Amino acid sequence: MPLTPVPAPFTADDYRARMARAAESAADAGLAGLLVALGPDLVYLTGYQPTAITERLTVLVLAAGQEPVLVVPKLEAPDAERAAGASALTLRDWTDGTDPYGVTAPLLDVDGRFGVSDNAWAMHLLGLQQKLPGTSYTALTEALPMLRAVKDAHELARLEAAGQAADEAYGEILKVRFAGRKETDVAADLAALLLEFGHSQVDFTVVGSGPNGANPHHEAGERTIERGDMVVLDFGGLKHGYGSDTTRTVHVGEPSAEEQRVHDVVREAQRAGCAAVKPGAACQDVDRAARAVIEEAGYGEYFIHRTGHGIGVTTHEPPYMIEGEEQPLVPGMCFSVEPGIYLPGRFGVRIEDIVTVTEDGGRSFNNTAREMAIVD
Amino acid sequence: MPLTPVPAPFTADDYRARMARAAESAADAGLAGLLVALGPDLVYLTGYQPTAITERLTVLVLAAGQEPVLVVPKLEAPDAERAAGASALTLRDWTDGTDPYGVTAPLLDVDGRFGVSDNAWAMHLLGLQQKLPGTSYTALTEALPMLRAVKDAHELARLEAAGQAADEAYGEILKVRFAGRKETDVAADLAALLLEFGHSQVDFTVVGSGPNGANPHHEAGERTIERGDMVVLDFGGLKHGYGSDTTRTVHVGEPSAEEQRVHDVVREAQRAGCAAVKPGAACQDVDRAARAVIEEAGYGEYFIHRTGHGIGVTTHEPPYMIEGEEQPLVPGMCFSVEPGIYLPGRFGVRIEDIVTVTEDGGRSFNNTAREMAIVD
Repeated sequence: MPLTPVPAPFTADDYRARMARAAESAADAGLAGLLVALGPDLVYLTGYQPTAITERLTVLVLAAGQEPVLVVPKLEAPDAERAAGASALTLRDWTDGTDPYGVTAPLLDVDGRFGVSDNAWAMHLLGLQQKLPGTSYTALTEALPMLRAVKDAHELARLEAAGQAADEAYGEILKVRFAGRKETDVAADLAALLLEFGHSQVDFTVVGSGPNGANPHHEAGERTIERGDMVVLDFGGLKHGYGSDTTRTVHVGEPSAEEQRVHDVVREAQRAGCAAVKPGAACQDVDRAARAVIEEAGYGEYFIHRTGHGIGVTTHEPPYMIEGEEQPLVPGMCFSVEPGIYLPGRFGVRIEDIVTVTEDGGRSFNNTAREMAIVD
Repeated sequence: MPLTPVPAPFTADDYRARMARAAESAADAGLAGLLVALGPDLVYLTGYQPTAITERLTVLVLAAGQEPVLVVPKLEAPDAERAAGASALTLRDWTDGTDPYGVTAPLLDVDGRFGVSDNAWAMHLLGLQQKLPGTSYTALTEALPMLRAVKDAHELARLEAAGQAADEAYGEILKVRFAGRKETDVAADLAALLLEFGHSQVDFTVVGSGPNGANPHHEAGERTIERGDMVVLDFGGLKHGYGSDTTRTVHVGEPSAEEQRVHDVVREAQRAGCAAVKPGAACQDVDRAARAVIEEAGYGEYFIHRTGHGIGVTTHEPPYMIEGEEQPLVPGMCFSVEPGIYLPGRFGVRIEDIVTVTEDGGRSFNNTAREMAIVD
């Protein structure tokens, strides 16, 4: 396969700019600052990701007009010092047996309200609440849901490359044998293909055959795929640190008229959802557009999840395309459009692309055929 | 290699007993109940582990005299229903777009104090704190640090099998070439060996050669291993759902007198730590015993971490063998004994076994030679 060039790594200046913007956004939202935990927020803001997440406190403290400080366990300080964003922040370490909240507290306004990473450990939040009873906290995605949502050109290039790799994996999976093999066998093929096409991490490889396809969160099981099965294939992971996530529903042999009709409805819903993507539209408009098609076709009660989720340094993040989400779409946002119909005990159909908001509409990072492919 | 038998799976009755014991322990500790998040606590108590942890709330509510209730996203309910412990609890699902805290709140005493899994997401804790301002919370390992610490016979058998597999991997890694290869190459060999000997998951494969060995949290890097290097090998993962974790420090070619002396000191410290393991001793006694040997040898300032950590459904959990931890050892507890000496910029030595507390002492699940092996 052609080798895609490795994108230039993000620099300390990139991370410095991201941290400054985050601190300003926090101040604009009336917050005294942000407490950023290990995980995608910290990767996005500093490039730092230790090899393992343990119970030891690591937290980045950001506040407008204040130098960013990363509190880290002393044992992990050498790793943190090597992070791409390390020179844009100050490290403050703490030693096993000492109180990490005591090290963090002096960095915080004692009466302040702080945004805290959604996935920060409850244990750490409780430690800070106890140490500083005058502080209050709100989840980062509640306070600043769009902190990581608008991607710059370098991020868009990575997401596009990840989408292309997933598309290449799909092209290859159509050539493998389905009938007579277990779902887990096809899932292993998908995982190997994602890695072959440059992914560093496989997040999920859903192979939902026949009735298993009617469970949208089924991954892959021991069921042997048979002729006559619909098979939902939903797979993705990270390439160069950014996510892919695409779904196509294929059929082993010729589909029945009903299977074809359900697939046609989902395909039209997915097209309508994508067509609703444009700057200024609300997230919920994308959901409504896709859902309307399915409801009009009489399958409304079988579309049992939201239409989409954001993607970036994770394969699952804000913004969410869901009724009630009035956040306007902004150029550079990237998210999935993935309506589905799930007929319990029978089969399911889902079609999914990652779409980015452009200046005048949307553009898909997944471009394989959306027609129902027939596989062997 | 000989195939070890797959242990019989834990049953719904096993999980029912664990949940009942947890609820009673919570009541004994003055808590209104426990809120158990996705992750090791939930695996231990219910056998449920979804394929991915997302931002959607899943929480097990345990309270004495109350049927256990697992709150799950509707999409994930089919997976939860298949968990081994599912028949020992009631599922309550919630749908995208509705308020999961509103579903959870009626299960809680509005004035109660609850233990919450350390790794519960801060977002979910904040959601409950906002919904029920009269409730208060404490981290589960603070309230009930020993909840998962004492293993039953079935768990001990799994931990022993995991230890044997890690030992077998060590036996094989001594045969590979070290000199001229990168740390990451040897780490890949170690990972493959753990999988070959039955691990389902590799958690870490530390290969710290020369100066890299002096950073106890170094994993494996691009450094090429050379003749004359000390190499710290610290590796483990999960087999049949339970952890392995062992460390040996090897030498490429003949060691210097100083290298041999440092290794001898660590070996004696590790022996002393293991010898301190017996029912009724405090966790800190194990740390003190190992540390005293290193301090007496004049290397005290270079032993920069605690002596050990518990192991079970994770490779890193309470109890901790650390100064200040007065928890008495109880038969069935399992933890690492892993002193080390780290000479910055030069080399490091660590020796680690998993030890279980028996009726009258301790027993090691790792039994490879602790002498410094010479490798090529």
